[in-house]
Amino acid sequence: MNEGVEWALHSCVNLCWVGDHAVPAKKLAAFFELPAPYLNKQMQALVRAEILTSASGPRGGFRLARPPERITVMDVVTAIEGAESAFRCTSILADSPVGVTGRNYSGSCFISQAMNAAELAWRRELAKTTIADLRDRVAKAFPGHTGKIESGLAP
Amino acid sequence: MNEGVEWALHSCVNLCWVGDHAVPAKKLAAFFELPAPYLNKQMQALVRAEILTSASGPRGGFRLARPPERITVMDVVTAIEGAESAFRCTSILADSPVGVTGRNYSGSCFISQAMNAAELAWRRELAKTTIADLRDRVAKAFPGHTGKIESGLAP
Repeated sequence: MNEGVEWALHSCVNLCWVGDHAVPAKKLAAFFELPAPYLNKQMQALVRAEILTSASGPRGGFRLARPPERITVMDVVTAIEGAESAFRCTSILADSPVGVTGRNYSGSCFISQAMNAAELAWRRELAKTTIADLRDRVAKAFPGHTGKIESGLAP
Repeated sequence: MNEGVEWALHSCVNLCWVGDHAVPAKKLAAFFELPAPYLNKQMQALVRAEILTSASGPRGGFRLARPPERITVMDVVTAIEGAESAFRCTSILADSPVGVTGRNYSGSCFISQAMNAAELAWRRELAKTTIADLRDRVAKAFPGHTGKIESGLAP
């Protein structure tokens, strides 16, 4: 999994503490000392997934596109990593004595089914946690962080 | 995930139908028209994980190291892919205004925790299915396959 997932999740959580202003990638990146162009690439992926909105210009930057209660960790992971399964069935059965040449076995092969069931369990678990949940956990466990994040991302 | 996972799982299931003889990588590979040297590499990983045993010599090859009831899909996936998490926390919090320089946040960061919980759900799901389960599903759904696999792998 690419490190953009970690960066994107942290940046989404940070954006929860920003008031009504947009935050440029440069500022989001500086908070974690990350390379801004590469974080910007991740943020653009979140815009395409409609998790963030972006505005250009001197007061431009990124904002959450909807309340963090309606953005799951799954949404962010999918935006960065794509929706494709980690396990790709290449239908090797098709070339075996028990298979039919050219057939796609990704739905019917029991091995595919077991791998897909596990991936579904993974996705379901990721979908249980929202960005708002993460924000609330941080706020509860480290109440001092809120102000530091807010001021770190202020215009 | 590398395609060796698919190959290794299919080969383990196939080995369930072999009697008391060892099957060389060449024969296991030929069943699915796979490149033998690369399948051999996966089989060696299964030997290191004590899922298979290997014997050299003219009657050499691979056997299941234990009953397929005691080999889970998780065991095979871990043998091929390694036990490392797909999500790697790089502790970016350490370099932020709310972090402690040099600290490892992989256990305490709520983002890491959410990602790790999902990976655990994935592993648990994979551990629910054994190679024997897969063998039984094939035998039940496609009773004609058993004989073809047996004769395809016979010495």
